[in-house]
Amino acid sequence: MNVFVIGIGHIGGSMAIDIKAAFNEAKVYGIDKNEEHLDKSLSLGVIDEKSTYSSLSEADVVIIAIPVDVTVAELPKVLDEVNEHCLVFDVSSTKEQLCKVVSKHKNRRNYLATHPIAGTEFSGPEAAIANLFRDKTNIICEVEKTAFKLQEKAMNIFNRLGMRIRYMDPESHDKHIAYVSHLSHISSFMLGKTVIEKEKNERDIFDMAGSGFASTVRLAKSSPAMWAPIFEQNKENVIESLEEYIANLTQFKELMEHNDFSKIFQEMKETNYIKSILKGIA
Amino acid sequence: MNVFVIGIGHIGGSMAIDIKAAFNEAKVYGIDKNEEHLDKSLSLGVIDEKSTYSSLSEADVVIIAIPVDVTVAELPKVLDEVNEHCLVFDVSSTKEQLCKVVSKHKNRRNYLATHPIAGTEFSGPEAAIANLFRDKTNIICEVEKTAFKLQEKAMNIFNRLGMRIRYMDPESHDKHIAYVSHLSHISSFMLGKTVIEKEKNERDIFDMAGSGFASTVRLAKSSPAMWAPIFEQNKENVIESLEEYIANLTQFKELMEHNDFSKIFQEMKETNYIKSILKGIA
Repeated sequence: MNVFVIGIGHIGGSMAIDIKAAFNEAKVYGIDKNEEHLDKSLSLGVIDEKSTYSSLSEADVVIIAIPVDVTVAELPKVLDEVNEHCLVFDVSSTKEQLCKVVSKHKNRRNYLATHPIAGTEFSGPEAAIANLFRDKTNIICEVEKTAFKLQEKAMNIFNRLGMRIRYMDPESHDKHIAYVSHLSHISSFMLGKTVIEKEKNERDIFDMAGSGFASTVRLAKSSPAMWAPIFEQNKENVIESLEEYIANLTQFKELMEHNDFSKIFQEMKETNYIKSILKGIA
Repeated sequence: MNVFVIGIGHIGGSMAIDIKAAFNEAKVYGIDKNEEHLDKSLSLGVIDEKSTYSSLSEADVVIIAIPVDVTVAELPKVLDEVNEHCLVFDVSSTKEQLCKVVSKHKNRRNYLATHPIAGTEFSGPEAAIANLFRDKTNIICEVEKTAFKLQEKAMNIFNRLGMRIRYMDPESHDKHIAYVSHLSHISSFMLGKTVIEKEKNERDIFDMAGSGFASTVRLAKSSPAMWAPIFEQNKENVIESLEEYIANLTQFKELMEHNDFSKIFQEMKETNYIKSILKGIA
């Protein structure tokens, strides 16, 4: 099985590692515009060989793991190159625009739109690790538009990687993921920004920061090259979620200004419900 | 050494455990208005005996680990009861009001204002664990107002528990802790609220949440009984930090509305600086 991974970073590289471990017959070819990343992933044993688009016709599986804006540009080109038995899937955090851009492509049936919810704040080939996808959710959109045999091929891979499968339409995916993922990244980046601005001349202050602060700003370590395009592609949904978040923060501030700490207590009490939601997530 | 712990929860209980482990001669007495918590901590071996304020005159050390509003009310009463060799310290997250309330107390020299930055989202005696304080920062305010011998007694305890000591005036403590701790809790609670409100009828959606979401809303599991009084006592500083946070979020939203994703990229890139700050924190 010839597996071509385009973009050997945290997700693409981790997938390469798991596929090589799960399928004896798999050979993983890496494609990346960053030559250093390619060399690094070769020396780390994440990929078996470097490759280019001109070899894509030999692929049995192509995995696209690059920023979402680049994916929108590259996916049609990849579909142009592959043979009729090749499965192409991407792993990006937005799905609507991507599904739209290939909806009329003659090889649409080779493509499966997926979003494995497994990323962390790390990026690059050094962040490729084994078993990243075990017990993680993989959201699949428009499954009915993919050829049966290629659906089967994809499920076989995802099962061997240990993922839970959920099916969803791309519009719903993008709407909900704005709340449970994209908004978290903005809240974290802006929290980091607020504190850095305040304390930039007082580095000692960070000695006062505990594990709670570390946890809430963890996502502010994430790659801007990955996240700016996600916010752009999911603009409407993200803005809506941000507006609701800002409204809630403003209301909280007003409650404080009016010394209504019993209402603040109540709000927090109700939000403690998050405990039951978080059971089972990382 | 008779150690009285008032409030046997996550912090008070964990301190009891470590002190018993570090000092053979220590006997830990628990005082708590919640009788269930007392029984629980006795059966867990967190304390040696239940006690009451009427025995405080026999104490060598009193640790106050109750919500900050109750601490303000109780600290003067505790100082009324203790003998001249007794060290009294609290562990609360705000320091200014507390230092003020005892500034004229005849036994002010028995008191040391401390804030061990070691809490988590857990609470209650079941959350008492060993080694919670190892390598954590302990902020001490107005050290010069505590009797020399009692400063020494306190340092001996904190060293044996493995804490780093930092000295600070109570006003600075409360100002900075608003940014590196209190604001994180509000950002987390309001993020949890925003997502719960949006998705309350669609529980499946939380299957889409990954470790990033879990990390940013972790603090929304925290105890409202502990946090509402903290926000109340540190009202001015917390409101200021909230205003700056809301302004940054609003600016981010406006950049999105104006499609200025290169500026968004830049903002995130600069905030990635948080990586170097977080090194060494949990």
